[in-house]
Amino acid sequence: MIVIVKKSTPPAAVEALTCKLRDFGVDVHISQGSVHTVLGLVGDTSKLDIDQLKIFECVEDVKRIQEPYKNANRKFHPLDTSIPVGKHFIGGGSLTVIAGPCSVESEEQIIGVAENVKASGAKLLRGGAFKPRTSPYAFQGMREEGIKLLLKAKQVTKLPIVTEIMDISQLDLFDEVDVIQVGARNMQNFELLKQLGHTDKPILLKRGLANTYQELLMSAEYIMASGNENVILCERGIRTFETYTRNTLDISAVPVLKKLSHLPVIVDPSHAVGMVEFIPQLSLASLAAGADGLMIEVHNNPANAKCDGLQSLTPEQFDQLMKRAAKLSAAII
Amino acid sequence: MIVIVKKSTPPAAVEALTCKLRDFGVDVHISQGSVHTVLGLVGDTSKLDIDQLKIFECVEDVKRIQEPYKNANRKFHPLDTSIPVGKHFIGGGSLTVIAGPCSVESEEQIIGVAENVKASGAKLLRGGAFKPRTSPYAFQGMREEGIKLLLKAKQVTKLPIVTEIMDISQLDLFDEVDVIQVGARNMQNFELLKQLGHTDKPILLKRGLANTYQELLMSAEYIMASGNENVILCERGIRTFETYTRNTLDISAVPVLKKLSHLPVIVDPSHAVGMVEFIPQLSLASLAAGADGLMIEVHNNPANAKCDGLQSLTPEQFDQLMKRAAKLSAAII
Amino acid sequence: MIVIVKKSTPPAAVEALTCKLRDFGVDVHISQGSVHTVLGLVGDTSKLDIDQLKIFECVEDVKRIQEPYKNANRKFHPLDTSIPVGKHFIGGGSLTVIAGPCSVESEEQIIGVAENVKASGAKLLRGGAFKPRTSPYAFQGMREEGIKLLLKAKQVTKLPIVTEIMDISQLDLFDEVDVIQVGARNMQNFELLKQLGHTDKPILLKRGLANTYQELLMSAEYIMASGNENVILCERGIRTFETYTRNTLDISAVPVLKKLSHLPVIVDPSHAVGMVEFIPQLSLASLAAGADGLMIEVHNNPANAKCDGLQSLTPEQFDQLMKRAAKLSAAII
Amino acid sequence: MIVIVKKSTPPAAVEALTCKLRDFGVDVHISQGSVHTVLGLVGDTSKLDIDQLKIFECVEDVKRIQEPYKNANRKFHPLDTSIPVGKHFIGGGSLTVIAGPCSVESEEQIIGVAENVKASGAKLLRGGAFKPRTSPYAFQGMREEGIKLLLKAKQVTKLPIVTEIMDISQLDLFDEVDVIQVGARNMQNFELLKQLGHTDKPILLKRGLANTYQELLMSAEYIMASGNENVILCERGIRTFETYTRNTLDISAVPVLKKLSHLPVIVDPSHAVGMVEFIPQLSLASLAAGADGLMIEVHNNPANAKCDGLQSLTPEQFDQLMKRAAKLSAAII
Repeated sequence: MIVIVKKSTPPAAVEALTCKLRDFGVDVHISQGSVHTVLGLVGDTSKLDIDQLKIFECVEDVKRIQEPYKNANRKFHPLDTSIPVGKHFIGGGSLTVIAGPCSVESEEQIIGVAENVKASGAKLLRGGAFKPRTSPYAFQGMREEGIKLLLKAKQVTKLPIVTEIMDISQLDLFDEVDVIQVGARNMQNFELLKQLGHTDKPILLKRGLANTYQELLMSAEYIMASGNENVILCERGIRTFETYTRNTLDISAVPVLKKLSHLPVIVDPSHAVGMVEFIPQLSLASLAAGADGLMIEVHNNPANAKCDGLQSLTPEQFDQLMKRAAKLSAAII
Repeated sequence: MIVIVKKSTPPAAVEALTCKLRDFGVDVHISQGSVHTVLGLVGDTSKLDIDQLKIFECVEDVKRIQEPYKNANRKFHPLDTSIPVGKHFIGGGSLTVIAGPCSVESEEQIIGVAENVKASGAKLLRGGAFKPRTSPYAFQGMREEGIKLLLKAKQVTKLPIVTEIMDISQLDLFDEVDVIQVGARNMQNFELLKQLGHTDKPILLKRGLANTYQELLMSAEYIMASGNENVILCERGIRTFETYTRNTLDISAVPVLKKLSHLPVIVDPSHAVGMVEFIPQLSLASLAAGADGLMIEVHNNPANAKCDGLQSLTPEQFDQLMKRAAKLSAAII
Repeated sequence: MIVIVKKSTPPAAVEALTCKLRDFGVDVHISQGSVHTVLGLVGDTSKLDIDQLKIFECVEDVKRIQEPYKNANRKFHPLDTSIPVGKHFIGGGSLTVIAGPCSVESEEQIIGVAENVKASGAKLLRGGAFKPRTSPYAFQGMREEGIKLLLKAKQVTKLPIVTEIMDISQLDLFDEVDVIQVGARNMQNFELLKQLGHTDKPILLKRGLANTYQELLMSAEYIMASGNENVILCERGIRTFETYTRNTLDISAVPVLKKLSHLPVIVDPSHAVGMVEFIPQLSLASLAAGADGLMIEVHNNPANAKCDGLQSLTPEQFDQLMKRAAKLSAAII
Repeated sequence: MIVIVKKSTPPAAVEALTCKLRDFGVDVHISQGSVHTVLGLVGDTSKLDIDQLKIFECVEDVKRIQEPYKNANRKFHPLDTSIPVGKHFIGGGSLTVIAGPCSVESEEQIIGVAENVKASGAKLLRGGAFKPRTSPYAFQGMREEGIKLLLKAKQVTKLPIVTEIMDISQLDLFDEVDVIQVGARNMQNFELLKQLGHTDKPILLKRGLANTYQELLMSAEYIMASGNENVILCERGIRTFETYTRNTLDISAVPVLKKLSHLPVIVDPSHAVGMVEFIPQLSLASLAAGADGLMIEVHNNPANAKCDGLQSLTPEQFDQLMKRAAKLSAAII
């Protein structure tokens, strides 16, 4: 971290500032230029708050040189992280497609979809039991019952399952869930993140609708700093001025997050665009950009889906997409 | 709700659609134009999901005419809601200034600030015990101990207190808290909102950084639909491309929310702009725009504040602002 | 267009409204429902202004059903438009890569880069002569002299050239330019668009930093309505809250624009991301998403480029990218 | 400007970099810390491009300390600028209300409105002759004829007039216009700005829909660097995710721009919110925030206005607002 001292600050004030900075537990190296004095802070500056330094009267500006995240930072973990889920690994060069319906609706539905997506090559089954909905009057998911149906589908198909947690109090129900999803709206639910950091389950962390890469990585850091290193980052579209699509897929997130972090990065084109007809193109684009995987909504009867039917592929459409994805992946290696 | 049917849809398909719509529990009135058939849905359409209707092949478009919120809607509650807190009322024509430090730091600090802001005319004391911080390494608040210190300050000064809850599991600690705050990052933590709807405490609900007016009102609706009508809306700045200020105060939120809803609307200029020097102007502007109150950060020693020192007024600055606010309020009545 | 009349509007008022609407040159079909009266406007509603209709007291809402653009609309031109440039065609199934430096800097530089990119497979040469810069103190381009050097490079390499116009007064200098570029900041410079509509040159129209798909298509419509049908749409990144990259590539723009319009859509990953290391991934992603082409900055000596060196590939990097692009294109057909 | 050199850069590379920097016409002061070497650039760094420095391999980061604008910068012009228009001054403590219709429509209309707004206390008359419209099919203004009618209204009422220029080629028509307006969409039409810098007319420069404070000030700088110091800044609402209002008024722009610059700052609440019912509150808020003036749309018959009728006050509404504004202004002095 670099602290730029205001011009014509008297030496005594610089010294007083230096002492205060040392109190924060960092070493301070003074670089005396002819115009500005610049203080270089050395040590673990991730715990320092830029705003707390800017408040000192003689400080002109503060510039972070190191990223404020450590566990998630590729600089300290140059190799790709690969996260075991059942017999499969997410990240580290393998391609992971997670598929399934937006919501679990019945035993027949979830097992049917699970068998279909497995046959097409999906490695994990997704399905919502607890559903975050903007309206209190909309379908809120089958909740506990939904988890049970997912576990039945897991038993039948042997596909590991991914499903969303909405509150810490639900954690006991997730004992046999393979990957716990944190939704976009909970990306900065810090108490939830801390608790998930005390489990050893892989966490699929979705990027918030208006959050930056650094904020996503700081949320991963919350989980990792509490002891759980198994975090999968998920780009699922951000909010922009465009309202034609549901959200706007930030395709650059893929290569940028993979540069900044060693964690796997997957893309959810279904929520990003929200319209079936564009999901194939965005899926292929995500793979071309280097994503470690995709999470795709598939429903056996989209027109009767309890939610997100507009963005659910049929099993046939999904199968076709998987074939195109395989061809593309082979070509870009 | 209006459903526009695609051109040249055969009558049988229109009838099939009509039946399906009636299954959702609404009446359907068919308006047969020479070009388009338009279906008017009558009844409680707040439970209908636009996306679920758009999925039908013969549907061209769906247009909501009624707002999807009812309890929070001024149409059904024409009079301003006024929420009792101690002997004071928030909304309904009275002006409420809530003041205090970002974080509770010590008994001396919180009681000192409380006495100061009370002397200047604040009606409630604010102070953070549980602090949502982007970084897991930043000060996370005094938590349980912080609540206790706030209650001491309440005892000494008789000022009702406002403090933030971050997770349902903390609710027991809020028994004697007067107003429970839901922070911007938790505005769509729907499980938390539902639980708060089962209490009878006033809830101060902050608008999320990238959320619309309707989304804020739908979150209020979550609390109200669960039985708690005491919701106070708070505009605290939204995220925009401007990075010079911390956030961007959306001043239009004040008159617009007061038109759409009967709930009180207060403004938090401290978080909106994040720089002490602009807080007085934005406070006055908020009152001129018709806000029911302000929430302002005041610290006895901003340079040593554990967080948000950059945006905390000194008690003297706060006192001066209160005098200017009184003059302005008198002039605009 | 659908006009929804307010409940309990007296029939005389509906009739008065109907007359006024007919004055705008459209037919009005009344659909009398039991709750709402809905007016269907038939004819050329592209000239109607929603705001002008909403102002009538008895109007509840107005909903556009037809898009407000006609010439650019795929509904009226189902086949892909293919635009001839020299012996090459842009759009219609062919892949067009446009490459060259941000700015023309010298004869040696522009001819050198042109030869390099041609050898790697580029079909057109780009190079800025008039440069829009945020600062009046930054290099503003070689202007007239730059155009002359581009024409020399065209003569030597036979590559058609693309370069940006910033003001109508410069049009005379563009006589031998093959494709005229309108920059993102001029996307809504309507006077310029109208004048370009009176030429017969292909126009490469860049999307503005905060503009929607519809606004981009309305700007294309300005050019086309004035008589010039040769418009190429270009997605070059939008402004979002993310500041790590220069802009954010909106990859969905590719399939969405190609659905809404018959015009060719190309992508400029260089401006979208602004960092050399991510350009290959975004280029491949754009092709996977279905783009008709790419526009890529290439400089023989990026470290000494007069502008945009950070986002310019070397000829070697460009050549490698072209090889990967060819493999990917072959795989996704 | 501060250039931070990467760790372990060999001294020779630092020296080579230093030489290159000196070539840009600035002095370089080396501050050798034990961790980082920091170079302080002294002199006129406003002409330096951060990106051009970041491209050097041994550069870790570059930080601008001085703002890139000089003529518009309050640091170099501590006193408020006051711009004479007729016998009136804009800025410098006086309050300026500019009022009139969106578009000039007829002699009767413009003279009628002019007389009305003058009677209520407006100091300047506004009216659009050249109208930037998203659609090529919408009313484009009376153009040359509109300017003539404005000049008649000026002759009759003695009110100075403000009207928008859309292209340099129109400049000759603006000889007797008192203040030339540059619209939001032309804020970065740099060729136009340069030409206006060669006139001596006051320029009312509107902020673009997605532009930052610094970008607005850099556009002012374009005009000022060309020789015309008479620039009036205008906040007219920015684009955000909220679609209920036309745009979102950025009220913080008022105190922030007045801190950063000595130029007058006025607010256009009509375009910012786009709905008549909220214009009074936003006007008062703007004055409370410290604005030097307001620009308000007034039409004698909003329901028949050729554009922007939804956001035009009637003369009676305007008169009432002026009275409230006067009371508020008296109270906040």
